[in-house]
Amino acid sequence: MSISIKVMEGIAASSWVVKIFDGRSQFVSKEQEVYDFRLGNPKIEPPLKFAEELKKVADNPFPGMHGYSALAGHVQTREAIAKTLSKERGLPFTAQHVIMTSGGAGALNIILKAILNPGDEVIVLSPLYLEYPYYIDNHGGVCCLVETNADFTLNINNLAAKITPRTKAVIVNSPNNPTGMIYSDESLKSMARLLGDKNRQVGNDIFLIYDAAYQDIVYDGNKLPDIFNIYSNTIFAASYSKPLSIPGERIGYAAIHPAMKISGELIEALIFANRVLGYLSAPVLMQHVITNLQGVCVDRAEYQERRDMFCNALQDFGYSVTRPMGAYYIFPETPGDDLVFTQELDKEGILVLPGKSFGRSGYIRIAFCVKKETIKKSLPGFKKVMDRFR
Amino acid sequence: MSISIKVMEGIAASSWVVKIFDGRSQFVSKEQEVYDFRLGNPKIEPPLKFAEELKKVADNPFPGMHGYSALAGHVQTREAIAKTLSKERGLPFTAQHVIMTSGGAGALNIILKAILNPGDEVIVLSPLYLEYPYYIDNHGGVCCLVETNADFTLNINNLAAKITPRTKAVIVNSPNNPTGMIYSDESLKSMARLLGDKNRQVGNDIFLIYDAAYQDIVYDGNKLPDIFNIYSNTIFAASYSKPLSIPGERIGYAAIHPAMKISGELIEALIFANRVLGYLSAPVLMQHVITNLQGVCVDRAEYQERRDMFCNALQDFGYSVTRPMGAYYIFPETPGDDLVFTQELDKEGILVLPGKSFGRSGYIRIAFCVKKETIKKSLPGFKKVMDRFR
Repeated sequence: MSISIKVMEGIAASSWVVKIFDGRSQFVSKEQEVYDFRLGNPKIEPPLKFAEELKKVADNPFPGMHGYSALAGHVQTREAIAKTLSKERGLPFTAQHVIMTSGGAGALNIILKAILNPGDEVIVLSPLYLEYPYYIDNHGGVCCLVETNADFTLNINNLAAKITPRTKAVIVNSPNNPTGMIYSDESLKSMARLLGDKNRQVGNDIFLIYDAAYQDIVYDGNKLPDIFNIYSNTIFAASYSKPLSIPGERIGYAAIHPAMKISGELIEALIFANRVLGYLSAPVLMQHVITNLQGVCVDRAEYQERRDMFCNALQDFGYSVTRPMGAYYIFPETPGDDLVFTQELDKEGILVLPGKSFGRSGYIRIAFCVKKETIKKSLPGFKKVMDRFR
Repeated sequence: MSISIKVMEGIAASSWVVKIFDGRSQFVSKEQEVYDFRLGNPKIEPPLKFAEELKKVADNPFPGMHGYSALAGHVQTREAIAKTLSKERGLPFTAQHVIMTSGGAGALNIILKAILNPGDEVIVLSPLYLEYPYYIDNHGGVCCLVETNADFTLNINNLAAKITPRTKAVIVNSPNNPTGMIYSDESLKSMARLLGDKNRQVGNDIFLIYDAAYQDIVYDGNKLPDIFNIYSNTIFAASYSKPLSIPGERIGYAAIHPAMKISGELIEALIFANRVLGYLSAPVLMQHVITNLQGVCVDRAEYQERRDMFCNALQDFGYSVTRPMGAYYIFPETPGDDLVFTQELDKEGILVLPGKSFGRSGYIRIAFCVKKETIKKSLPGFKKVMDRFR
């Protein structure tokens, strides 16, 4: 046996993820038209400003432009982010509170590496982004799932029941992948009070890791609660993948609360993790490009239009849908088993993911960051399959 | 205590690495001119062809250009690399044997993640690239150092003595950082025979991880032995950082021997590791850019000129220097303790690293990928310090 045993197990449990990135499917025949709603790889192109900024950087090379940056990232880039955060949050962020990362996934991995000792527990709200358990395991942690309510809102009692003296962090992903839920201000404040109480009881300082990957993709004028003003032991993981539609470029950042007691140590630990995990520093060209693109975002109305078109149709067909408040996934209930339902959709050339993969069976995840045409053409298939189950 | 204990220890042991990336020093006064030879961050600009290709890609956006690639990387990019490898090595490489990575460091991390079980031993030849022990520890492995000879050539007896039933891999870095050594064809063949014998004895298949980061930076018409034709259980880690002078862009690849028995499983494991370590895939813009830049390299003569200028002067001053055959580091002996010698150089505004950091005390590492001017102006300081010790 030459491969890592744990990796072999991981592959067995999730080899389908690779196929999704490859755009492959084992069920659909080659002749059939395919409507692929599996991957959050947006078909909406980056904002014009991104293309302009990239061209500007490419057209104006300067010495050392492609060399290593500081391990935390270029100071100008971090200052631009700190300035935006300070303005938005009313807190004194500086470059010292920001570290550039290889996307949101890079941010989460260095955060977990920086804080976890073997056996430390990390609480994750379910339904969950399916990679969290792997990220936690990479760094010796133990993933503890906490079920949210049937409508995906926070269940504070469930959360309280899972906190132990080994709890090192809670990961909150809002807007949530796969549900599109934005956890309310009130519920996050309840969570903060609970964590505060537990911290006092155990003499601990539980971190709140706030995965803000979809913070820019919100609908209906929804506002995201400001987590920094709710809980001071917050580590924020953000990404330019979604606002700029550039997930392949791997650029994001981690930011820590300026009032965090151990902010100096934590930033050092994040830098160390960025270094030894082999990231070294975030891709520098993209660091240059995004410096002047703070707050720039694709047209959210494009996504909202797709969401509404999709949700309206699915509801008409009899699907039970909680309309997502943000992100670009719909997470409808399935009549009966989600794996069976997913296979039935497959036969119609419709590729979605079973809720089971996200910790909740009886649902499917539909990524709607696709062309409108794809949605339109897929609708008869969605109807047909639902009709079969009713 | 809120930071990972192991990370705190790592920071304590190597916080100076961060300062190097930042260009900071604690010893030199602010008024003093500084000659910084600590970091392999080349001051030689990328080849013109790189700038042209980057401009071409930036000027011709196409749909999905900045989206995720397949987790292994774009097929065109991997095919271009496989074609070059096949031609150079006379072996049937295809895209299936290549995975794009976030630089050489990303390649090494996914390789180790893919193969290591907790407690597995990885042999590293010393002097060594100082990050290997951290990379091995990230994935639960145990780093076993094997001393090379006084002239940095392989010592097969030392190697043989360190192989145990737990040995999973040997990392060979050639040209070597920090010594510039290119391990000879003959010595690598001896190593391959030894590994073959041990494999047969233990029923194991020890991997040879060949870190080829500096494969393009070789001098005096030196030729690198072809490791693929020496040992078939080889995993190759390569990077565009050095040939294209773009270390900040984080682009490289891993390639596996086409005849490796478990090549299919191993590639799957590497893809899994790329995914769950949060790399997801290598930065896509750079994947596009390097596709047509196979074999393109900065002018090696520029480096060779610096090497000769530096080595000749140091030898004149009484330094004992083994002239590097490749890479861009000189590793001269110090009279007496290397930490003391390094501090004395510091006082002259000359920043180098002590050999201790690379596993061999009594030496210093000088990165000469700097401006010629910097070398010239530093020479009186090198002379002065050596004169003090003689």
